[in-house]
Amino acid sequence: MIAERASQPLAVFDSGLGGLTVAAEIRRRLPSENLLFLADRARVPYASQSVALIARWAAECFDFLLAHDPKAVVIACNTVSSVYLTELAEQTPVPVIGVIMPTAHAAVEATRSGRIGVVATKATVKRRAYDMAFAELRPDVHVVSSAAPLLVPLVEEGWTAGEIPRKVVEHYLEPIVSSQVDTLVLGCTHYEYFVPIMQDLLGAQVRVINTPLATSLELERVLAHDSELNRDRRRGTVTVYSTDVNEALERVVKDLFAEDLSEGRITVQSAQIPPFRIAPRRV
Amino acid sequence: MIAERASQPLAVFDSGLGGLTVAAEIRRRLPSENLLFLADRARVPYASQSVALIARWAAECFDFLLAHDPKAVVIACNTVSSVYLTELAEQTPVPVIGVIMPTAHAAVEATRSGRIGVVATKATVKRRAYDMAFAELRPDVHVVSSAAPLLVPLVEEGWTAGEIPRKVVEHYLEPIVSSQVDTLVLGCTHYEYFVPIMQDLLGAQVRVINTPLATSLELERVLAHDSELNRDRRRGTVTVYSTDVNEALERVVKDLFAEDLSEGRITVQSAQIPPFRIAPRRV
Repeated sequence: MIAERASQPLAVFDSGLGGLTVAAEIRRRLPSENLLFLADRARVPYASQSVALIARWAAECFDFLLAHDPKAVVIACNTVSSVYLTELAEQTPVPVIGVIMPTAHAAVEATRSGRIGVVATKATVKRRAYDMAFAELRPDVHVVSSAAPLLVPLVEEGWTAGEIPRKVVEHYLEPIVSSQVDTLVLGCTHYEYFVPIMQDLLGAQVRVINTPLATSLELERVLAHDSELNRDRRRGTVTVYSTDVNEALERVVKDLFAEDLSEGRITVQSAQIPPFRIAPRRV
Repeated sequence: MIAERASQPLAVFDSGLGGLTVAAEIRRRLPSENLLFLADRARVPYASQSVALIARWAAECFDFLLAHDPKAVVIACNTVSSVYLTELAEQTPVPVIGVIMPTAHAAVEATRSGRIGVVATKATVKRRAYDMAFAELRPDVHVVSSAAPLLVPLVEEGWTAGEIPRKVVEHYLEPIVSSQVDTLVLGCTHYEYFVPIMQDLLGAQVRVINTPLATSLELERVLAHDSELNRDRRRGTVTVYSTDVNEALERVVKDLFAEDLSEGRITVQSAQIPPFRIAPRRV
């Protein structure tokens, strides 16, 4: 029975392409596992939409992944983790791992001064997702949060270096820099691209937490605990689904999964949103 | 027969909220008309998605509006106008008016030097939508285009003044400023918010074309030609539908339709995207 479950895939979900950094880290650490990734690229970003709509879209994506009978699901999206993770986890028969708790845990272990900065999307800051995680793990932590909504479109445009991105990052980090934190959490997987600028602005003494690594370690711990790690010595397969297959997706897959691509172990597939009629309803 | 059609509503569509500036201008010029507006706010922006997906979404929104039997439809979205207007117009029994042709027409009338700048979204620049419009209207026009993808998220964040927005606009306008145009076309309804910065960077001698006005005048011309202007002396109603009703929508409606709101002539309604299953298919 256990061996059978062990060969089931691991499912990873993100609204966009940032979560592929988490999938790539899982791939590095657990190469025997079969990975499924779903990017809801058609509807990215889940940023200014209402919470009810974000929750519904996440549920639709989640149903798609559960239909593949995974042994665990990773929500590699801070916005969905902050809005909807508890409800999703309660309705799901397999472990559901978000990015927020593993990242907060790593931050608490890294900090000496107890002063932690969080740079995140508006939805994540507004929902106080990291504040609540820290309150649970170590209530005396002092958190300084800053919403940085423009960083996602900068990444989507591939504009991650130069004067303007540096000025934008500086603007968003200002309250964090002036609060003398010793640890920084990136509350959005897109922000990984700005680590060089951030490290430069904050100084080398500030530790920037690696969310893909922290999340992968938590997944590994959960699978080991349930004796569900795949012990097969062959490399597993990777299947990337997207609700819209386009150039940006193909470029990121090429960057992050070069080896799997050259060895034919990765496939990119369309996960289609069916046509439908839009219906009016008075609010 | 004609009088019956005249009382039918005018339908206006945009992926987001920028198109409400066009609807507001139509309202000012044609106050007797009944207006329907649909914002596909759930899926805005239609920016980095594939052309096939943009076309499908536009068709879904279009079907929704046609179900209300309008006497004309205005596509107040440059991206949809550039990707899909011809096909939509061919399938539709009533006049379909985009923003590109009326704006290009106004630019050709305004220019003296024949040098026109176009700042637009990536999709619109890539599809060469304005180049083709100018080629049709006046082939000797020299067009200088610049894609300005970050301006939409800046507007969505309400960040339209100050050092960083100015630097971003300056960056995008640089090729246009150095080409000494005498006329500027804003190829995205969101960009209206940056007119003060743009006018300042370009100098007062450069004419910035007013897309909402040019589009409204074209609509008026078409309706008058078909004898379908509503001659009723009472003010018509405005119904704003959105696929996601949220704070941003309500704020913009309040700003642009203050009078109608205070007089109870405007309603905001949800146009629901039904729940569905996402289906895999190999590409």
